[in-house]
Amino acid sequence: MGRDKSADACWVGFDLGGTKMMAVVFDASFKPLGRARKRTHSKDGKEPAVDRMTRTIREALAEARRGDEDLAGVGIGFPGPLDLVKGVVLQAPNLGWKNFPLRDELEDRFSCPVVVGNDVDVGTYGEYRFGAAAGARCVLGVFPGTGIGGACIYEGAILHGARASCMEIGHMKVVPRGPLCGCGGRGCLESVSSRLAIAAAAAAAIYRGEAPHLAKLAGTDVSEIRSAALAESIAAGDRAIEMIVRQAARHIGTAVANAVNLLAPDLVVLGGGLIEALPKIMVEECAARAEEDVMPSFRGTFRVVPAKLGDDAGVFGAAALAANPEIWS
Amino acid sequence: MGRDKSADACWVGFDLGGTKMMAVVFDASFKPLGRARKRTHSKDGKEPAVDRMTRTIREALAEARRGDEDLAGVGIGFPGPLDLVKGVVLQAPNLGWKNFPLRDELEDRFSCPVVVGNDVDVGTYGEYRFGAAAGARCVLGVFPGTGIGGACIYEGAILHGARASCMEIGHMKVVPRGPLCGCGGRGCLESVSSRLAIAAAAAAAIYRGEAPHLAKLAGTDVSEIRSAALAESIAAGDRAIEMIVRQAARHIGTAVANAVNLLAPDLVVLGGGLIEALPKIMVEECAARAEEDVMPSFRGTFRVVPAKLGDDAGVFGAAALAANPEIWS
Repeated sequence: MGRDKSADACWVGFDLGGTKMMAVVFDASFKPLGRARKRTHSKDGKEPAVDRMTRTIREALAEARRGDEDLAGVGIGFPGPLDLVKGVVLQAPNLGWKNFPLRDELEDRFSCPVVVGNDVDVGTYGEYRFGAAAGARCVLGVFPGTGIGGACIYEGAILHGARASCMEIGHMKVVPRGPLCGCGGRGCLESVSSRLAIAAAAAAAIYRGEAPHLAKLAGTDVSEIRSAALAESIAAGDRAIEMIVRQAARHIGTAVANAVNLLAPDLVVLGGGLIEALPKIMVEECAARAEEDVMPSFRGTFRVVPAKLGDDAGVFGAAALAANPEIWS
Repeated sequence: MGRDKSADACWVGFDLGGTKMMAVVFDASFKPLGRARKRTHSKDGKEPAVDRMTRTIREALAEARRGDEDLAGVGIGFPGPLDLVKGVVLQAPNLGWKNFPLRDELEDRFSCPVVVGNDVDVGTYGEYRFGAAAGARCVLGVFPGTGIGGACIYEGAILHGARASCMEIGHMKVVPRGPLCGCGGRGCLESVSSRLAIAAAAAAAIYRGEAPHLAKLAGTDVSEIRSAALAESIAAGDRAIEMIVRQAARHIGTAVANAVNLLAPDLVVLGGGLIEALPKIMVEECAARAEEDVMPSFRGTFRVVPAKLGDDAGVFGAAALAANPEIWS
C-alpha cells in the first residue's frame, strides 16, 4: 500500500474516455465503495473537463461516505499518448488537449498523489490483479475498440519501453499495402480489426443488402453500428456480419501470434466492448489463428481468454496503480 | 559479481554454434585473458561434444594462465530452445540433442556454476554491456543468420517471457501466405530475410546469369553463398544481389517497426555475420523502413545501429551472464 492511512483510507480509480468518464472509490482491500459517471463533453475545454473529473470523484466519494481527507491516491486510465514520468497528456484529439499536465492539475485539487496511465495498461493490470489474468507470469492484453490497444504485464510490472507506454499492437502491419490506418500507415491491425473497421465493413454489407437484421438495428452510418448491434444481428442470422467479425478476429490472432513469438506470455486476455458483446466468436477465432500462426515451440504454451471485469477493468487497474505506483516497473 | 574469489578469479564466456565453438576467459573487469576455438563436429553425439567443450575451456584457461580452481562461473550461449531454469537444451537438431542437461553436465566437470542462455540473448546482452547498445534503457537486438533471432534487454534485464527465451522476431509474419519457413509456417521474416533466404534468392539470380561476380565466388550451391561473398559481389557490381539484400533488409525494417510499436526500445542493434559483412546497406535500408512503418508517435524515438563486438558479442555476454546471473530478470 502506498501510504499509512486511517481505516477509512480509500483510493479512486478513474476511467477517462472520449465519451464518458467514471470514478470508483475502493477501500484498502479493493472493495468498491461508491461510483459516479458523467459524459465527458469533450468540447468544453481543459478547465471544465478537470472540473467535471473533480465533481465525478467527489460524487463517488460521497456515495462511499468518504471525504477528500480519506483519499490516499487517485489513478487515472487515459486513452492516448502520455509522458508517464510527468503525468502529462501529450495529445488527446477527442478532448482537444495537448501537453496538458493532468496529474499536477488534479494534485492541486486533491491533496493526494495522482498517477496517470494508459487506459489499456491499467485495464490489463486490472484483469491481472482482479480478473481473468490473475496469477499469470506474463500477460498480453489486447483491447479492440475504436482503435486497438495492447499492454503487457511482466512479472507484476507494466512494461512501458524506453520512455512511453508501449504495446501498440494496433499498428502492427498485418496486411502489407492494406487499408489506410488512422496513424497514416497502411494495413495496420487497427485498419482491419478495430470496431470501427468492422463497422465500416458492416455498413457496406448493409448497403449491399447482405445484413437485413443489422440494417434494422443500425443503418449504414458507421457511428451507429455499435458492438451490441453487431452481436444481435449475428444472433438473428446476419451471416455476412458474422464473416466480417470472424475475419477481423483472425487478423487479431495473427498479430497475437507475432506478439507471442516476441514476448512468450502465458496468458492473452482480450477485452473491451467488442469482446464483451461477442466473446465466443472473437476469442475462438483469435485463439485458433494465434495457435496456427505462432512458432511451433510456442504452441500450447499460452491461453487466450476474454476479460472478466468488463467496463470496470480500467477503474480497478487504475486504483491498484494508485495504491502501488512502483508497478511502473 | 557472483562470488567472492581470489584476484585470479575468472569467468568463461562460451559460444556454442552449429559449426564452431569458442571459449574466452575474462577477468573480473571483463578483460579477455585467453581464448580457444574448435569445430563443433556436430555428428559426434553428446558425450564427445561435452568433452570438446571441456577441452576448449581448458585450452582457453591455459592461455589465460588460469586453472579450474580460478574459474568462478561459465556462461554459455546456445542457438536453440532451452529450459532456462534447468539449463536443459530442449532441442538442437544440428547437434542431435534432445532434453539434454547441458548445465549439469558441465557443472559436473567444472566445480563452478554454469548458466546456459540463448545465443541471441547473450549476444545482445554483450552489446548492451560492452558494445553498440551500452547505456540504452530498452534494447531490441536482431541477429539475421541462417535464421533470424531477436532479444530484448529491458532496464538491464534480459526479457524472457513466461518461461522460455522469447523475442522470436524471425517468425513474425511479414508476407501473408509467403514462402515456407523452417518452422512450418509461411511468410515469416526468416523465410524472406535470413542469410539462407538471401542465399537462395542469390543462387537463383546466379542461375539466371544476373550475378556474374557472385557466380565466380560461390556458384549456385546455397551452402556456399556466405555473407562475405555477398558483400564482395555487391562491391564488384552485382546489382541483382544488392537488390535482393536491400529487399531482405526492408522486410527486417517492417518487423523491427512492429516490434518497436510493442516494446518502445530506444535502441535497435543489428548483429551477426550478414550485418558484419554488409553493415551500411543492411542498417540503412532497415532503419529507413522501420522509421516509415512505425507509428508516428514513435518516429525519431529509436536508433538502428550495427553491432560492434562482432563474433565476440556472445562470449562477452555469456561471461557477463555467468558473473551476474540475476540479469535473467
